[in-house]
Amino acid sequence: MDSNLNDFHLIQTCPDSKARAGELVTPHGVVPTPVFLPVGSQATVKTLTPEELKALGVEMVLANTYHLYLRPGITIIEKMGGLHKFMAWDRAILTDSGGYQIFSLAPLRQVNDDGVIFRSHIDGSQHFITPELIIQFQEGLGADIIMALDECPAHDDSFEKVRAAMTRTHQWAERCQKSQKRNDQALYAIVQGGIFPQLRHQSAEYLTSLGFTGYAIGGLSIGEPKTVTLAMTEETAVLLPADKPRYLMGVGSPEDLIESIARGVDIFDSALPTRVARHGAFFTRLGRVNICNAAYSQMELPVDPDCDCYTCRTFSAAYLHHLFSCEELLAYRLATIHNLTFISNLMQKARSAILDGTFSSFKDNFLASYKPTDEWIRLNQKQKWLNSRNQS
Amino acid sequence: MDSNLNDFHLIQTCPDSKARAGELVTPHGVVPTPVFLPVGSQATVKTLTPEELKALGVEMVLANTYHLYLRPGITIIEKMGGLHKFMAWDRAILTDSGGYQIFSLAPLRQVNDDGVIFRSHIDGSQHFITPELIIQFQEGLGADIIMALDECPAHDDSFEKVRAAMTRTHQWAERCQKSQKRNDQALYAIVQGGIFPQLRHQSAEYLTSLGFTGYAIGGLSIGEPKTVTLAMTEETAVLLPADKPRYLMGVGSPEDLIESIARGVDIFDSALPTRVARHGAFFTRLGRVNICNAAYSQMELPVDPDCDCYTCRTFSAAYLHHLFSCEELLAYRLATIHNLTFISNLMQKARSAILDGTFSSFKDNFLASYKPTDEWIRLNQKQKWLNSRNQS
Repeated sequence: MDSNLNDFHLIQTCPDSKARAGELVTPHGVVPTPVFLPVGSQATVKTLTPEELKALGVEMVLANTYHLYLRPGITIIEKMGGLHKFMAWDRAILTDSGGYQIFSLAPLRQVNDDGVIFRSHIDGSQHFITPELIIQFQEGLGADIIMALDECPAHDDSFEKVRAAMTRTHQWAERCQKSQKRNDQALYAIVQGGIFPQLRHQSAEYLTSLGFTGYAIGGLSIGEPKTVTLAMTEETAVLLPADKPRYLMGVGSPEDLIESIARGVDIFDSALPTRVARHGAFFTRLGRVNICNAAYSQMELPVDPDCDCYTCRTFSAAYLHHLFSCEELLAYRLATIHNLTFISNLMQKARSAILDGTFSSFKDNFLASYKPTDEWIRLNQKQKWLNSRNQS
Repeated sequence: MDSNLNDFHLIQTCPDSKARAGELVTPHGVVPTPVFLPVGSQATVKTLTPEELKALGVEMVLANTYHLYLRPGITIIEKMGGLHKFMAWDRAILTDSGGYQIFSLAPLRQVNDDGVIFRSHIDGSQHFITPELIIQFQEGLGADIIMALDECPAHDDSFEKVRAAMTRTHQWAERCQKSQKRNDQALYAIVQGGIFPQLRHQSAEYLTSLGFTGYAIGGLSIGEPKTVTLAMTEETAVLLPADKPRYLMGVGSPEDLIESIARGVDIFDSALPTRVARHGAFFTRLGRVNICNAAYSQMELPVDPDCDCYTCRTFSAAYLHHLFSCEELLAYRLATIHNLTFISNLMQKARSAILDGTFSSFKDNFLASYKPTDEWIRLNQKQKWLNSRNQS
């Protein structure tokens, strides 16, 4: 690893919380942190062009090795000059190893110490992958940040199951590290350990002893209650080296982002802002609203009058309501632009507040007005989505 | 009608054909003709923003009174400040009366001289509309060009049925004309008469005697063979006044546009370029190609190397193939941008050629290299599409 290409500079820490402002140096530009990565699993952030992503302030996107391995195949992307060129995105990219997808999406998995056999969720074809292969794939894709292969247990698995998955994740992380050939990609390890503080400690201790460029907190935001997610994030973040970036995987609701920034997280990704957008949910500073609600059918104002995104500057809530009623494709795009702008602005404001030393009051003010989506509805929606993914 | 607001200037006629170059003056700008109108039935050209449409050279779009009457309702669009404001489009708009949709899309129609009773294809609700109401609706929407209500028979209906529909169309056109209150909208009549030259003559003669701002050729491109469409277009266009714009409804394949321009048509609309785009068909100067073809899976070049549209400038054919394989929403948008750019460029080139006096060789060159989609496939696809619309 050429460390100059993948430095992390910690610039400021909040005096009242663990919030940090910093910057990630990558071969495709410097990324201010805290940062949120929109999800582009299949080499596209759904509905948007690279130019639109840039215009709304996106500095880095996430793509997924599992998805790209199945379609179009790693070799094709390599032949096309790598993932950046393939998707015409010249800013930073992080590729997830696909561990979570293999363990949540692919049917008929068989895992052993060597690796994992699974069937494609697309055509049922059988595949065997190992930590070494996952690194080879990610070197082929050429993202700026790549992830070790982890075994991701379910949120309600027993202590023993979670411990076994953690141990395997550690062995795999070490093998990933050893098999890395390119020196321009930052490899991050993924801390596992479920909802067991003792395991989180073991996992953080073991992985930091190996010395990675960054550390992810994995195995959270997968169906457990929000209080548990936050408690585990807090528990884990403090165990990670202060001079390395910390990445909380799968977190992306506005309130969770702010709460997790306060606990010392620098990097986030989640499909939530873009996924709920396609179901008509728009973030506002008061909470999530749904444009399909009849109240919007005659509203001449933008859905979020505080917002300066293209969608809110250009169209009335009534027009958006109409597009969603008609299931017009433009609807999904306009909602995605709004939600990603909201999240991008939120992250920028959080960062400014950390730099100004005002993060604590910024957080309190934001959370005082933002009404989170009811937890029961949230988990229920997530479960429905997981079920629909597994059926498709 | 304030004629200054809706003038048509004939600038040049081709010496070797009936092709014309002109300009339409509308309250929302001057539109060079021949012109192709992308279809935005529901107040959106599927997948694109108004800015994108402008960037690719679109001067006027079509929206549909039938669709907008059902959703969101004319009153709502009026309250929102009219159709231009509602869809954030400040260039010209033409609204179709919805005659064709009522007669092709809505189930359980009952037509009499007064008007037509039909059920909504969306929720089955019953509606009664008259020529007067259709004008009132279009005055509420506020398009620059509005269409008289016509009765549109099927392409294989008998002479007697087609004659009866024509006669009713004439009565309705007269009632539309009489009920017009706004003086800033150009009202066009629709010539009917099916595939019967005798009826086309009667229809053109009757409607031109009433004196409309423009004339449409209706009841074509609805399933009859292409040779018949062209023959009827030729037959009808010459019967229409030279100093008025001529609008051929529902025509939009590259070869049909060029052939119909040669027969004296100024204005076209069709969902074809945008609809086939969403099925992966890209126009090129050699003909239509389908990006889903395996040949494109590893092609580093753009799908159309001659093209300067955003899609072809930015992405490889392999990337587009991948997006279509994954049914990614961005796919439909990128293909739409390409096809509308192709048609827009084609119309601009045709116009330049007419102005230069080189249209005849331009036409021959274009048609010599452009291989039209096989007629059998074309009619079959159209029938499938009509069936799927009627089931939904």
